[in-house]
Amino acid sequence: MSINPEKYNEWAAQRKAYSEGLTAAQLFPKLRMGDRGALASAITLIESTNPTHRTEANALITLCLPHSGNAWRIGITGVPGVGKSTFIEAIGHELLNQGHRLAVMAIDPSSSISGGSILGDKTRMESLSMREDVFIRPTATGKTLGGVAQHTRETIILCEAAGYDIIFVETVGVGQSETVVHSMVDFFLLLMLSGAGDELQGIKRGIMEMADGILITKADQGNEEAAKHAKRTYQNALHLFTAKDSGWIPKVACISSIEKTALNHPLTWWKSYFDQVTQSGYLSHKRKDQDLRFFEESFQQQLSQFMANNEQIHKGYKDLQSQILDGRCSPYEAADHLLHLITTAHGNL
Amino acid sequence: MSINPEKYNEWAAQRKAYSEGLTAAQLFPKLRMGDRGALASAITLIESTNPTHRTEANALITLCLPHSGNAWRIGITGVPGVGKSTFIEAIGHELLNQGHRLAVMAIDPSSSISGGSILGDKTRMESLSMREDVFIRPTATGKTLGGVAQHTRETIILCEAAGYDIIFVETVGVGQSETVVHSMVDFFLLLMLSGAGDELQGIKRGIMEMADGILITKADQGNEEAAKHAKRTYQNALHLFTAKDSGWIPKVACISSIEKTALNHPLTWWKSYFDQVTQSGYLSHKRKDQDLRFFEESFQQQLSQFMANNEQIHKGYKDLQSQILDGRCSPYEAADHLLHLITTAHGNL
Repeated sequence: MSINPEKYNEWAAQRKAYSEGLTAAQLFPKLRMGDRGALASAITLIESTNPTHRTEANALITLCLPHSGNAWRIGITGVPGVGKSTFIEAIGHELLNQGHRLAVMAIDPSSSISGGSILGDKTRMESLSMREDVFIRPTATGKTLGGVAQHTRETIILCEAAGYDIIFVETVGVGQSETVVHSMVDFFLLLMLSGAGDELQGIKRGIMEMADGILITKADQGNEEAAKHAKRTYQNALHLFTAKDSGWIPKVACISSIEKTALNHPLTWWKSYFDQVTQSGYLSHKRKDQDLRFFEESFQQQLSQFMANNEQIHKGYKDLQSQILDGRCSPYEAADHLLHLITTAHGNL
Repeated sequence: MSINPEKYNEWAAQRKAYSEGLTAAQLFPKLRMGDRGALASAITLIESTNPTHRTEANALITLCLPHSGNAWRIGITGVPGVGKSTFIEAIGHELLNQGHRLAVMAIDPSSSISGGSILGDKTRMESLSMREDVFIRPTATGKTLGGVAQHTRETIILCEAAGYDIIFVETVGVGQSETVVHSMVDFFLLLMLSGAGDELQGIKRGIMEMADGILITKADQGNEEAAKHAKRTYQNALHLFTAKDSGWIPKVACISSIEKTALNHPLTWWKSYFDQVTQSGYLSHKRKDQDLRFFEESFQQQLSQFMANNEQIHKGYKDLQSQILDGRCSPYEAADHLLHLITTAHGNL
């Protein structure tokens, strides 16, 4: 009896994943016990593009899903230099002191050319990262925004299954990624610099509309007046937006990294926000909404996997690419052919 | 003989598209003659989600494709307030005076909640928009970044078929959309404010790496020294990046909206850039690369259309959504089912 070489390769890959500790069966029990190393490996697994890893990642997510959805999912955004790390570090200590377990995911708009990562440039949140009950993970966005969304959503699920009850999703900048992040968090916190001018400039309007809370940072060292002025401006601006589905009225406060008491603001907001949306049933509605988006992203991700693993489609895809390069086929026609290949694949999964 | 109601609806929709002038056959000849109204209608057509419009849009793109690819595709980006509109207005007049025909596409990160559009907030490029031979169009990004990419790429093709030989794609902010835009333009121009501090801050690194040219704006009114300093800083920073595939060495210059002579810089850059990349063959290589990306985006777009129009898949999709909402199915399993539906659709196109 001869050995099917394809099956053999699959076995070999699975053995390798097992020996590396990168299987769902190995990771899940450790993850549930809150093992940080297992959580880190699990995230490495879901970020992997290796087909065997992907299979294990899928199995792991399926195991984790019933244990997810119970954390406060909080998005934190603001332009570089606004003081996100300082804020997260300060409030992180506070939350840990209160007995919470905190996971911080930093979405990192890595350079798509050199693959360089800006968050890797500096050591961040050093004192926070030393503590127990905290897990900090930068997520490189890689090439696609879809990839960010998929991995971040999956990472949230893993963290929740690992017992983290507060999840921060930090984004840098004011780009499209905030919209994606907004779709996966419950509370969206915007950090703004006062006195940087252009407080109400266009780019931030869309982001501002999403905000459940705005913190004006660095309201110290002679910047107090500007901060107060910014606060009034934002409060007025927030009135112009349509009411939120959550029924929550967005809050604005000034915050200083020197006066630690100001941290009470976001802590109070979160407490009353989650009380309110839990009672009103909005949170479970929001969770369902997040599930629907997860469905979309999982579908895209499984489709790519299917296309990569189905030999006929993979070959057809490569073939269409060379036809485009040779000018024998327009990109439009090629897309049509590819779609035909997929819809006639007869489910050769 | 009874009338098939489905066919009847299709006919009715086609008649309506025809009466509105929104068919490929009506628009294409006008477009080729450079009719701006037809171009505007064509863009409306490709932005429409109506299935009949989509069919006509596909036909129109197919007609236009052979007449596209000959323009200078220039991406222009910078944070709000950096002076993009002022710059485009000034250089736009100059290009028109030189006999060029200019299309300006502004990618507008509209608020995904209210649907509000920031570019609509203010009247922009007023004097430029009064001139002949210029076409200015804001593209709302809507919900998906994929949508931006698809529509912008299609709009470039339409503009080129309509005889515009210079295409500006303007983006606001420093988000993920720049990466997408970078993939569809030939020359990527970055506008930077001097003296705004944080010149080399993280977020801009990825964007800076993409830049073929950096203009430091508002180098006037006492800001000259800061601008010169910024120029040196950028020039040094650019040396740190890996050489570009195009062989082009990125340029840096200061620009003042008062001294119009500074406009010579980007004009000279573009001239020598396009000379260089045309001779080296890089431009045709780049066009092929752009075609491959267009292939990917067209595929995604045709897949969505297929899923919306195939009754069985559409029903299955809706069904899976309600199963997720009822908690009868995990988003992950649902994605798997949906993929199965599509791959077993037997090409019921």
